[in-house]
Parts: sequence; C-alpha cells; structure tokens
Amino acid sequence: MNEAVSEAAREAAGAPLRVGLAGLGTVGGGAARLLADNAALIAARAGRPVVLTAVSARDRARDRGVDLSAVAWEADPAALAARPDVDVVVEAIGGAEGPGRDVVEAALTQGRPVVTANKALLAHHGAALAAQAERAGLALRFEAAVAGGIPIVKALAEGLAANRATRVYGVLNGTCNYILTQMARSGRDYPAVLAEAQAKGYAEADPAFDVGGVDAGHKLALLATLAFGCAPDFDGVSLEGIERVSLADIAHADELGYRVKLLGVARRAGDGVERAVRPCLVRADSAIGQLDGVTNAVVVEADPIGQTVFEGPGAGAGPTASAIVADLIDIARGARGPAFGVPAATLTPPGPGAAPAAAPIAAHYLRLSLQDRPGALAEVAQDLGLEGVSIRAMRQHDKPADGAATVLIVTHACARAALDRALARITASPVSLADPVALRIEDV
Amino acid sequence: MNEAVSEAAREAAGAPLRVGLAGLGTVGGGAARLLADNAALIAARAGRPVVLTAVSARDRARDRGVDLSAVAWEADPAALAARPDVDVVVEAIGGAEGPGRDVVEAALTQGRPVVTANKALLAHHGAALAAQAERAGLALRFEAAVAGGIPIVKALAEGLAANRATRVYGVLNGTCNYILTQMARSGRDYPAVLAEAQAKGYAEADPAFDVGGVDAGHKLALLATLAFGCAPDFDGVSLEGIERVSLADIAHADELGYRVKLLGVARRAGDGVERAVRPCLVRADSAIGQLDGVTNAVVVEADPIGQTVFEGPGAGAGPTASAIVADLIDIARGARGPAFGVPAATLTPPGPGAAPAAAPIAAHYLRLSLQDRPGALAEVAQDLGLEGVSIRAMRQHDKPADGAATVLIVTHACARAALDRALARITASPVSLADPVALRIEDV
Repeated sequence: MNEAVSEAAREAAGAPLRVGLAGLGTVGGGAARLLADNAALIAARAGRPVVLTAVSARDRARDRGVDLSAVAWEADPAALAARPDVDVVVEAIGGAEGPGRDVVEAALTQGRPVVTANKALLAHHGAALAAQAERAGLALRFEAAVAGGIPIVKALAEGLAANRATRVYGVLNGTCNYILTQMARSGRDYPAVLAEAQAKGYAEADPAFDVGGVDAGHKLALLATLAFGCAPDFDGVSLEGIERVSLADIAHADELGYRVKLLGVARRAGDGVERAVRPCLVRADSAIGQLDGVTNAVVVEADPIGQTVFEGPGAGAGPTASAIVADLIDIARGARGPAFGVPAATLTPPGPGAAPAAAPIAAHYLRLSLQDRPGALAEVAQDLGLEGVSIRAMRQHDKPADGAATVLIVTHACARAALDRALARITASPVSLADPVALRIEDV
Repeated sequence: MNEAVSEAAREAAGAPLRVGLAGLGTVGGGAARLLADNAALIAARAGRPVVLTAVSARDRARDRGVDLSAVAWEADPAALAARPDVDVVVEAIGGAEGPGRDVVEAALTQGRPVVTANKALLAHHGAALAAQAERAGLALRFEAAVAGGIPIVKALAEGLAANRATRVYGVLNGTCNYILTQMARSGRDYPAVLAEAQAKGYAEADPAFDVGGVDAGHKLALLATLAFGCAPDFDGVSLEGIERVSLADIAHADELGYRVKLLGVARRAGDGVERAVRPCLVRADSAIGQLDGVTNAVVVEADPIGQTVFEGPGAGAGPTASAIVADLIDIARGARGPAFGVPAATLTPPGPGAAPAAAPIAAHYLRLSLQDRPGALAEVAQDLGLEGVSIRAMRQHDKPADGAATVLIVTHACARAALDRALARITASPVSLADPVALRIEDV
C-alpha cells in the first residue's frame, strides 16, 4: 500500500498523526515539549491528535523537560524515518550535510512528509529535496528555518501568494542585531560586545556562522525562493558580515538619522534576483531601524499588497517549536503542496541579479579620513563628481591633533561601480589618509 | 453527484477553479482585476488556473478596469451561487444582513465553498455560518475581512496554531488612525480632521461605522474567535469610538511619552475573553505608537511564541484583493478546514470576559480641570487614595486666567471600578470644574 495514501486514510479517519523526531537539542526538545504541553489545543486545531511516537538523539539520559518514557528511541535517525509507527518526520539535527540531510532524504524515500528547521540544508539542497518531495506527493515544510516563530514562510507561500514580489528584506539574525544594538547603546566596540553576547548565550563560541552573515544568507535564500520563485542556490548569495562595522560608523550614522543593521535583501534586478546580506544604514525612525535586540523582522514589498511587516522572535526553543508544530498541524490537515509554493520544476536560477552596471541603485554613506588642509574636501568632491556620484550631504566631523579630519558624506543614489571607481580615486589621492568606508543606505 | 466531491475531482485533475464573484465595488473589482493581472502567477501557486466565470453586480455598464466580456452576469447573486460553472463563490457585497448574507448562505447550501470580505456578516453570524460550512465539508474563508492585506487570519488559524494566545490587539481601523495621526501632527481638532479625511476619501460621508469603533469591533470579534476559540458574538464587544478624543489629550499624552490610538484588544480575563475597542494611550516608542496613517497592525501575544507583530495596509482594492485571491488559492489547493481554525461546535461563549472587579488591570491617564487654589491637588490625591488608586506621576499643566488648572495624572495599574469610584468623588467635589477625562494606558 502506498504510504501517502495510507496517511490520507488515517487523516480521513481522524487517527492521530504520529511524529518521529530526529534531534532533541534546543529545537527538537522544544517541539517535544510543545506537543505535550498544548496537546488538546493542537488536536482541536489539527482535527486529530498529533503525537510523538519515536525520537532519535545521541544522549538518551539528558532531561528535556518532557516525559519521553512512552516514546520509542532509535539510535539511527534514518531508521526512525522508516518506522511503521511514524507518519511524519521532524528533522531538528541541522547541517547542510550529514545525519540531518540523511534523515530528510530517508523520510521522503520512505514516503513520509517532512518538517525541518534546517535552513542550511534547504539553502544548499532545497530545490532537489522539494522536487523529491513533490514526486512522492509529500509535504516538505520548513517554517522554523526562517525567522523562528514569525510565520513568514506561510505568509509568502500562501497568505501573499497572489502577489508579485518586488523586494523582500529583513533583519534575519538576532545575534548580529543584538551586537549592533548593544554597540550603539553602550558605546563599546565589536569585540567587547561579542564577548558579552557569547557570555549571555546569544552568540556561539564560534560566532562566524552568525556574524559573517552565513545564517542570515541561508534564510535570505529561502525567502527569495518563496518570494521570487528562484532556486535557493546558496552559493550565489552575496555575504558580508558585521565584523568590520566600527563604533565610529554606528555613531556617525546616528548623527545623520540612521541605524546600522545587518540586512538580508532580495529584489528583482536585471533579469534575475539580487540577494545580498550586508551591513546597511536604514532610517532610524523606520520599523527596521527601531528593531532592537534579538528580534527578527521581515518586510515584504509586493504588488498589489504594497508593504507588509512581520516582526517576532527569531530563535529560541518556544518560537521554533511554534513553527514546527504549525507545520505538523498543516500536515495533519492534509497539506501537501509544493515546498516553495510553486512546482520545483519551475524554480529558476536566480542569476547574477545585478542591476545594469550604470544604473543608480542606492544612496551610500561614506566615511573618509582626509588631510586637514584647504582643498582636501574639494578634491574628494571632484573625485566623486568625475564618476557621476553626486553628494546629498557632507559633514566634516572633527579635527584631531594629528592633522586628520573625518569627513562624512551621504551620496544620492549611485551605481556601485561608479562609486567604487570614485573611491579608488580617493584612495589613490594623497589627501586620503585611510581606506574609505562605504555603507549602502537601504531605503526602508 | 455531491458537489464537494466533484470539486475534489476537478482539483485532482488540475482543472481550473471557477469563481463566481458577487459584488463589483472596490473589493470585488479589485479581486477581478487581480485574477486577470496575475493569472499566470496565481495558477502556478494554486496548481491550477483560477478563473472568473460569473459575476453579479448592480451596474453592468461601469468600467472596473478589467475585461469582463467573457464572464456571465447574474442579476441575482443567489442565482450566481447556483450556477453549474461556479466552483467557489466570492462575496464582496458586505453587510450583516441582506444580499451579502443571502449569497453566502445560498453558496453553502449549493455545496460551494465561500470566500468573503464581509466582517459584519461574520461578526454577527460567523458561528452559524462556520457550522453550516463544516457540515457540508466546505471552506469558508475570510482573510480580507480583517486588517485588509495582512495575512493575520491565516497567521492565527494556521501559522500560530500551536500557541495558546493571551492577548491579541491592534490598530484595526485605518480611518481612525489617520484622523488621530493628523490631529497630533497638525494640531487641528477632530471635526476639522474628519472633514479632511472625508474629502480625501479616507472616511465615509457617514463616518459613524468607522469612528464609532464598529468596524474595528467587527474585526476584533473575528480576531478573538481565531485566537481564543470564542464565538464572534459581536453584541458582546465593548465599543468606544474616537469622537470624544480631544486635541488636549493628544497633546498631553505626547508630553508624557504616549500616543492616543484606537485599539481593539482581546485578552483572557476571568473565565472568558475581554473584547474592547477604545481609545488608549500607548508608549510613543512602541510599534503601535509609531504606526501612522491608514496602516493597520495586529500584535499577537501567545505561548510559546512570545510576541509577534504584523503591519500592513488595512484597506484598499489591492490589499483586499490580495487576501481574497490568497483564500481562492488555498481552496484551489484543497483547503477545507474549519473557518475559525477549530470545529464550530467547540466555539465557546466569550462570556463577560471581565477581570475580578478588584483586580488592577491597567494604568490610566487622567485629565482634571481643577480650581487653581491651595489644597485642590491634595484633595484629588486623597480621593484617588481613598479608593486605592495610586499615582505614578502628576503634573499641573497650565493656569489660565479663569482660575482653572489642568492637572494630568498617570496612575499605577488600578481596578476600573475603583477608578470610577474615585472619579465620582472628584466630580462631586467643588474643586473639580469639569468632568474628568480618563483613558486607559495599554501596555504594548
């Protein structure tokens, strides 16, 4: 008997949806607790009980705050996926390769729908996995993989499904937003605040994944796929982290009415979709500018909806569990649509997603360190003007004793290539005492 | 042959979902245009084409910006619902009674699922209609009825389905928010700004429905049903509009760091669910406090998600069409779950939803007009103290020549009954020169 048909029959009969859970860390443990804590409410909303029947985790002894005595244990997560008493597999192991990937593939091969919180896996292999799930008529859901508890995957795939997206952007990594917020508030520099975030458990011992933009990039790749129908193709996402954001730039941005945020931005550009994670300046009074601490936010701009904003906790056991169980409830109700909202075969390559080289794309903030002498400002202004970069505001900031003056410039929207050429001119000039800093001003 | 089964067979075969649209005003016209404009994208996401086959509207001649020459016209909306070439009925007529209600009931009786933008209908008759739809195994969807384009119905019924809500609140009426925002910005009073809003088309010629809180109350009733599983029971929603919000209170609130917003708030209270629409003070730096103009916002507080915020356009042809077509796409994909996310039979009466009379519920802002003489403040403070209302901040504002002093008070959280008794004492005292103004401070 075909497994999918079998599960459909169980659904029609109101039989419990039996969950096999691979991974019992923060994410998996939270899901197990939520299934127990809110069981009656979940059953009412799912139309049938959703029960944990089997788990797989390395450490069987650890207390997860939930009674697992009646649950079967499998040492091998792939064996979990093949158990006859498992209707749906939740993958909470993580990682683009290895056991997380193995259990997802095993589940789909065995005819079980999958719920996963694994952004790395889907950012790298999402198109192939979506195609595999579709061929088998199985759901592959991943609400927990993007922006934690915010139901943004559902919003893009379903709630805003009639819209043609033009831009999707957001603050997608709570660790980075916490660090940038704390730098602005406390006036302490990046290494000091990172150390504090690590002490508080907001940042990993090896923070590269977060502060380098990789985590945000995984999420952005999935958002872009949902919004624009392009393959996740993680390798094509442009990544720049917050490691080089200086306290000086945060303070200067503030004077000019901006905040520095690590933004993931996907937009239609040229023939494709531009996808970039980078530190940007945003208006201080915007929703994104006001977003402090570990909160995530996603802004969707689309036709005909206009603009919608979604804010909420981006990580943590509770929010992630909320997302996983929402996916389970959908599956209990019979959801089986394509993973990314459109058939996997129609996902297009995102392409370079670059605007024409000469097209003005965004205003920029520049911080220059110049000789404090007559004519230095004029020379910089000329260098910018020669490349067609026009100046909206310029401010000479201070004059330390060593003869260097800090000059802040906000440009009008300019082409990045033209700006790079102008910055090369400035760098080569004797009036410039240090490499210029340039940050994009994202219009939010 | 059972109609629902017939539609299931059409779905399985990838046949077009055929839409009958009743009402071609702003909402219906927008939906018709969107189905035409984004037809390819909608088909990709629905897994099958979604096509308009029949409409019903009073004025056949008016240009709706979309070619309807190939679409059948029915003079009688109920006849539309019975057409053999209609798989799903969209009701965009409006009104708790009359043809809007008739066409929804006719569609469900004929075995057609329904998509409606009609908040009044569902706030008054939602429980009965949901039960009727459920008995027939038909979807009854209403994303467009609440907060326009924001996919908040889906978020509550599905995306946050695993959560136990504690409070749901928001700015649910764009007209009121526009008026309050403009009063604060321009310093003009309510009648002047209302007249401007009417001239701009943001307020109806008869604005009672908006400014009196009825429209927000309809939406709040539906949000409460989705979040708490209580019947919509509109008559039990407490309503207070913005007609009596004065420029003075807006200005004084601003001095104290607050904004005045018309909030709809639903929360667990006592044995039931408190549901109230009223002008409130909210922190100026909160997401709700920052929400200007016609934008809507809904905040969901729930366990285990914590807090999530949804913002977007609350009205207009595009956003409403986005919501209607999202519901159609869900139906094309086979959605048929209960209208409010749980079986209609389990909806409970919201009850009075009152906290115990003596329980402190919220801080309040008070504006008193007192005799400008020694001892007046002390007497007021004593009146409050006698009823157990303690004062967080007090400010004597100005001393006009006529001997009246404006005194602003922010209380600590107090029971409303105690506050009412204290205000009665103050009103009866000779030191009080005008009825006190009391506005709740909602903790957002």
